[in-house]
Amino acid sequence: MRQAYHVQLADLGDHGSRMARLAGDTMRDASRALLEADLALAERVINRDVVLDDMRATTEDVALELLALQSPVASDLRSVVSALWIVADLQRMGTLAIHVAKAARRRHPAAVLPDGIRPVFERMGGVAAHLADRTEVILRTRDIELARQLDGEDSLMDDLHSELFTALMAPDWAYGVQAAVDISLLGRFYERFGDHAVAVSRRVIFLVTGENVGGDTTVYGAPPPEPER
Amino acid sequence: MRQAYHVQLADLGDHGSRMARLAGDTMRDASRALLEADLALAERVINRDVVLDDMRATTEDVALELLALQSPVASDLRSVVSALWIVADLQRMGTLAIHVAKAARRRHPAAVLPDGIRPVFERMGGVAAHLADRTEVILRTRDIELARQLDGEDSLMDDLHSELFTALMAPDWAYGVQAAVDISLLGRFYERFGDHAVAVSRRVIFLVTGENVGGDTTVYGAPPPEPER
Repeated sequence: MRQAYHVQLADLGDHGSRMARLAGDTMRDASRALLEADLALAERVINRDVVLDDMRATTEDVALELLALQSPVASDLRSVVSALWIVADLQRMGTLAIHVAKAARRRHPAAVLPDGIRPVFERMGGVAAHLADRTEVILRTRDIELARQLDGEDSLMDDLHSELFTALMAPDWAYGVQAAVDISLLGRFYERFGDHAVAVSRRVIFLVTGENVGGDTTVYGAPPPEPER
Repeated sequence: MRQAYHVQLADLGDHGSRMARLAGDTMRDASRALLEADLALAERVINRDVVLDDMRATTEDVALELLALQSPVASDLRSVVSALWIVADLQRMGTLAIHVAKAARRRHPAAVLPDGIRPVFERMGGVAAHLADRTEVILRTRDIELARQLDGEDSLMDDLHSELFTALMAPDWAYGVQAAVDISLLGRFYERFGDHAVAVSRRVIFLVTGENVGGDTTVYGAPPPEPER
């Protein structure tokens, strides 16, 4: 029984890092589908919603069973509770990647992004993939130094998001209203993806230290970018 | 000790319904600040972020203490776990309302909404307030019939969101790019507010029945609106 308990606890950790890897791969593929207007790839990304939801449900079930049958305490309890929080953020990261792929599908065969805006999204895609990779490492190693750094690394995303809004709001915006609407929502999806990665890192800090600093967008976090005009 | 336990469990439920009331009031005020370009009201809404975060932290602490010291099982365990999920959604509802208020503040003294678009937001604000009110009742009464209906009621929000995008994408859109960007993000904030209300209702279904159908935007839920052109 106790052995099964430790296996289940280890499983819970594995689920988290595997789901982070999936969320990262999903965003990487979604970014490529967006940048290359690749419909087949966009479809494959969109179909991952069921896999992501299965992973969430499985992890929640393991966590609930552990709580019900083993009454874990101290750091074991924190592992279980943080797993419940973390899978919600990881599922949301996957869903946001799927939203990116849906934008690519909706405009296909046209490209969503005008040429002048592509470079910002290439960088946002790169930062998103980096944040997801870091999240995977943080979940696997429980390295709280890396976890504490993630908020700062996410500020790269916030900077890109601000840059995007500066371009959108410039009087010489040349790509019309539809592109502006698509791009403002896409920018938001990338920015939220980064926020959820930071939320996961905060839950790992709680897991390791017991210090509960909240998850997604608490008052402790960086405010969302509010580009001034 | 057992008496304290039941008091703490009841407290947890109270926190949820109180926080739902605050989230609803915050969105009601934010909508008014947006529609009336009321800067003072927008500021008051924005300052509620600390209150919302305190409520989240307090609820999480009570839930964690219950898990650590009382090892609840069966429906008591579900109450505690669902409280952890629910406060995250309620905090996010408050944050989304604050984003609405920030849009009003950013454009003040100008109005964010052109006259032709105001009616859609008046209705979105009404639906958001209704969904939050229902969420409060569902949390207070644990009425799972009401909880099961909420998804359908949220489809009113999805319809308004689609209507908004149809207007934004119409060739005769007359309000320029900046308004289109503001409005597409505002529409998204209202739509996500409704999604989180539905997520809370799903967690109440879990609390009462043990049936875990997930929370925010699972594959079981309605897909986000994707207005076709």
